[in-house]
Parts: sequence; C-alpha cells; structure tokens
Amino acid sequence: MAVYTDISEAELAAFLRDYAIGELTSYKGIAEGVENSNYLLHTSTGPYFLTLYEKRVNRDDLPFFLGLMGHLAGKGVRCPVPIQRRDGGFLGELAGRPAAVVSYLEGMWPRRPTAEHCRAVGAALATMHLAGQDFALTRRNALTVDGWRPLWERARDRADEVEKGLVAEAEAELDLLEANWPSGLPRGVIHADLFPDNVLFLGKEPGLIDFYFACTDFLAYDVAVCLNAWCFERDNSFNLTKGAQLLRSYCEVRPLSAAEIAALPLLARGAAIRFMLTRLYDWLNTPPGSLVVKKDPLEYLRKLRFHRAVRSAAEYGYAEPVAAG
Amino acid sequence: MAVYTDISEAELAAFLRDYAIGELTSYKGIAEGVENSNYLLHTSTGPYFLTLYEKRVNRDDLPFFLGLMGHLAGKGVRCPVPIQRRDGGFLGELAGRPAAVVSYLEGMWPRRPTAEHCRAVGAALATMHLAGQDFALTRRNALTVDGWRPLWERARDRADEVEKGLVAEAEAELDLLEANWPSGLPRGVIHADLFPDNVLFLGKEPGLIDFYFACTDFLAYDVAVCLNAWCFERDNSFNLTKGAQLLRSYCEVRPLSAAEIAALPLLARGAAIRFMLTRLYDWLNTPPGSLVVKKDPLEYLRKLRFHRAVRSAAEYGYAEPVAAG
Repeated sequence: MAVYTDISEAELAAFLRDYAIGELTSYKGIAEGVENSNYLLHTSTGPYFLTLYEKRVNRDDLPFFLGLMGHLAGKGVRCPVPIQRRDGGFLGELAGRPAAVVSYLEGMWPRRPTAEHCRAVGAALATMHLAGQDFALTRRNALTVDGWRPLWERARDRADEVEKGLVAEAEAELDLLEANWPSGLPRGVIHADLFPDNVLFLGKEPGLIDFYFACTDFLAYDVAVCLNAWCFERDNSFNLTKGAQLLRSYCEVRPLSAAEIAALPLLARGAAIRFMLTRLYDWLNTPPGSLVVKKDPLEYLRKLRFHRAVRSAAEYGYAEPVAAG
Repeated sequence: MAVYTDISEAELAAFLRDYAIGELTSYKGIAEGVENSNYLLHTSTGPYFLTLYEKRVNRDDLPFFLGLMGHLAGKGVRCPVPIQRRDGGFLGELAGRPAAVVSYLEGMWPRRPTAEHCRAVGAALATMHLAGQDFALTRRNALTVDGWRPLWERARDRADEVEKGLVAEAEAELDLLEANWPSGLPRGVIHADLFPDNVLFLGKEPGLIDFYFACTDFLAYDVAVCLNAWCFERDNSFNLTKGAQLLRSYCEVRPLSAAEIAALPLLARGAAIRFMLTRLYDWLNTPPGSLVVKKDPLEYLRKLRFHRAVRSAAEYGYAEPVAAG
C-alpha cells in the first residue's frame, strides 16, 4: 500500500506527450501494490494505469513483463495491454524511473474468495498457461528452489525471533525440497504471484494483473501457488471444495499430467516456503514507519505444515476425470 | 496517504444499491488524504469519489460539509457534488463508518504552485466566500484562537524535543494572539484548509475539494491560510509575487475591507500557529509504522516568524486598487 514516487503534473504531461492517449484530466496514486508506484490516470480517451518501477524491479526484466501482457492480451486473456509509445516502444522514463502505461482493467479483486472464484481462477490460470506457450521470451524464476537458500541465509540469524524452532524446521524443509525438487515437468510462462488481489473480477469474468513476478518455470508450480493463495481459510485450514474447484477447472482447460499431479504436494510445499521466506525477509528488514504493510510469514509456515502432511493431490480435492462414454 | 478501511465488493455493492449511479465496475483506494479513507469508483455511469469518514471526523458535522458542497456547486463553484441516495439523504454507512459518494472532480493539484496558480486560487477563494454567504448552516471553527491553547497543552511537555526554545516562543505567541485576535471582521463559510493538494486544476480552471475543515469564521482568515499555504517557497521564504497575485485576484472578486487588510498579518500568524500546532501534535503522537506521513511542524514555525516581522499587508504584496477614472 504505497506510492513511493510523487509526480508533478508537468512531469507527467511531458511523459504523456510520447503517447497518443489524449489529454490528461486527472491522476491519483493508488494505495495498492507493494513493489511499485501506481497511478490511475483519466484522459480524454478514458482511464489508464501508470506504473513507475521502483528499485526492487530489474529494468532488464521489463521487456519480458510488458511483452507478456501484450502477448496474452492478443490471445484473448483479460489482462492489461501495454500502450505503445509514439516511438514504438512500451517503456518510458518518469521521475528518474522506468515507467509504462497500460490499459485500465475494470474489475474488483475478491477480499473473501469463494469456491466460485477459485473455479474461475483455475480456468483463467490454465488459459494463461496455454496462451503463453508460444511467447518468445523467457525469464528465469529467481524465487524457485535454488533461490530459497540464499534468501534464507539473509533471514536465518533472526528467524527464531519470529517463531521458536523456525531455524531447524526451515532448514530441514529446504534440505528436503532441494533434494527432491522435480525436474522435467511441463514448463512455460507462469504468473508466479496469482493472489486474490491480482485477479479483478468484472461480474464472473476474471482478469489478471501484476505480472511482475512472471517467469518461465513449471506450469504446475503456478497451480501450487494458487492452491496456497486461494484455497485456505483465514484460520489456515484448507478448504477442499475450493481446491477441488480450482483443480477441476484448471484441468478442463489444460489437463495436468500424471507427473504433475504426483508432484503437486511437493510443489505446494515449495510455494509455501517461497512466500514464507520473502515475507520473513521483509518482516525482519522493513523499517518501522515504512509505507508497506508487512505480511505475516507464519501464515505460510502453517500452510507449509499442512502440505507436509499431504500424501497425494486427492487431499487438495483433485479427482481423476471420469472417462466419457 | 492512507486507506484505513478496506472494503469488500459485496459490502460496497450493497451500499451502492441505495444510489442510482449504475453498476460498479472497479474501485481503487486512493493514496491521498490523511483523515479519511478515499476510493475512486468507476461505474457504468462514470467515475465517482467515495469517502469513508474515520474517527477524527465528527459525524454531526457531516451534514454541514455535504450540504456546503451541494450549495456551492449549485452556485457554480467547481467542487464535488454529493450524490443523493434513493432515500433522499446524502449519508450512508459502509464498513461501520459514515460514508458518502460525491461526483469525481477531474483535475490535478499543483505540486509546485506558480504565481498563476496563486492568482486562480485567490479568485476561487473569493468566489467561494460569496457563494457561501447564503448557506443556511453554520459550524464553529474548532481550530481558531480559542482552540489553540488546549491543543498546545497536549503537546507542550515534549515541544522542546522538536525545537529547543519552542515552549517559550509558542507561549508568548499564544498570549499575544489571544489578547489581540480581532473581532467584528466579516464572517461566513471558510474552507480553512485550502492547501495546494485541495485545489484541482483542469487546465487553468481550479476546483476545490476536501471541505472537511470548513466552518464559519472570518473570511480574511481563509485568505491568511492561503498566504501560508501557497506563497512560501520550499526554503520558507515568502514569494511577494505570489502573495500579490493571490490578494489582487481575491479582491477583484470580493474586495477586502480596511479592517480585514489591517488584520491580515495577525491572521497570518494565527493561521501559521494553527498548522504548527496540529502538525506538532501529530508529530509527537503518530505511532511509528503509521500509514500517515508526518508533516514537519517547524515549517510553520518558520512561517510564523516571518509573519511576526510583517507590519502591513503591503509586505504580502497587497496593493490598494487604483481608483478607476
């Protein structure tokens, strides 16, 4: 919840002269998103969304993110479309930061996701995976298995402050995940951060936003992220109905292979530790008085413990499709 | 810069059923304003502005604020218009808080006000003062001379932490202001907080927002607030050109009386201490980690010292109008 960079009308107007989107009539800083500064613009041609990329985003990754949105939108995925500049590019500079304008996606993210939302998200995720199959660029996932240990090293010394025994528990988990992380599962473009606040529903129609963790990785890992992000209740209990809806609707669009299904519990553990680790790092390193609301790492420790006890995807609600006939 | 209260789509949709403004298509929390939670709504009939009134706003004052905006807009002042509910009222309840929808005012507040902005603001302020003359409701100014001492009492113990010698300086100033505060100046509805972020310019056309400090008081006090808020540079030096523009354009719409002009330096001292005191109180009482960005009370101490040396309104750039002929 933050706008890190305030911009003046003069700066913004100068920046927008490189776009053919009409006259600026207003802009408001948006109290959402923790990585970048976001503004909702109104111009004489409609609403737009402006993002200033702050320091946690690597400038070299921006063509991947913006190109991906354009590619997906071109394939009919409901997501923001980057607006082309008069010079043909998609990236400008504003207030000393890389900045891009994208179309404004109407819709509302569900504060209390229902099973119906989970069904819609499963289908939308699979649709995105298929649409991304012929996207030309690739981007390494910096936050998959080989990225967790370095992140952990930077948090370990103070981890027991957050939960007694966390050091031993996390290290055992990392050892196991590193030793058993799958290889050879179907790969492609994944969103990698498809939390409820990144899915804007217009009626029943989901739209996807915030592709700034997107990368090339196992498609089933993205499913595992969504199981973590969508299918737990506030008391950290898993909702089997939500899991079943998400998995069924995903498979209706893109069937999961036997290997992917078998890997799901381990992938879900990996997804849980990934969010636990980034939250833990932020928890220990966000200065008091920061504009960012810190998220609780222990939520993901609880989820990790749940996944550790899962023996098969059936415990997430996965059911073999019944053969037609 | 804050949204204190997050709202769900279901809550908001239920709230909006009491309005005839079409179907909600999106809502975004706005990172502006420090007192209330503000959302920019898009519906099938256009953009709207939603405010949830947080605890620092007295619910009994809301009919004054909302009625005033409607009154002023009806007289042609460019300001948000409260949207009437189906039951005829203007105030609803959302997430346990009083809430109102107003029209969305396009425009941008000037981050770096120019003399031209000051000229526009002077005229807009005078126009608002005239338009408010027949507004039926009144509201006491809780932050004028008799409100400063109680505020000071709650900050005094720690004031010297902020600036050594502040206790002696502020007490001498309060003694003087209490002994010499004018009476009998023309009264009416004043905005009382017309800072640059409360004036949205669409091209050269100013629009006024955020009437939540509006009250009934000396009209010239509002001019003094604007001299403080608009006519100092970032180094706290007074810009005589800006002052001259603001005062001249004000007087072109509503001439200041001789008594008002004579009182201006004292009113400006009062306005400076008013903002110094509220900022000082917030400075000492805002917990670390708060969403609010604290504003520096010393900025207004510097301005106060400037005003203390001013002997007449000419030092603000005021010039007697030359008689026509």
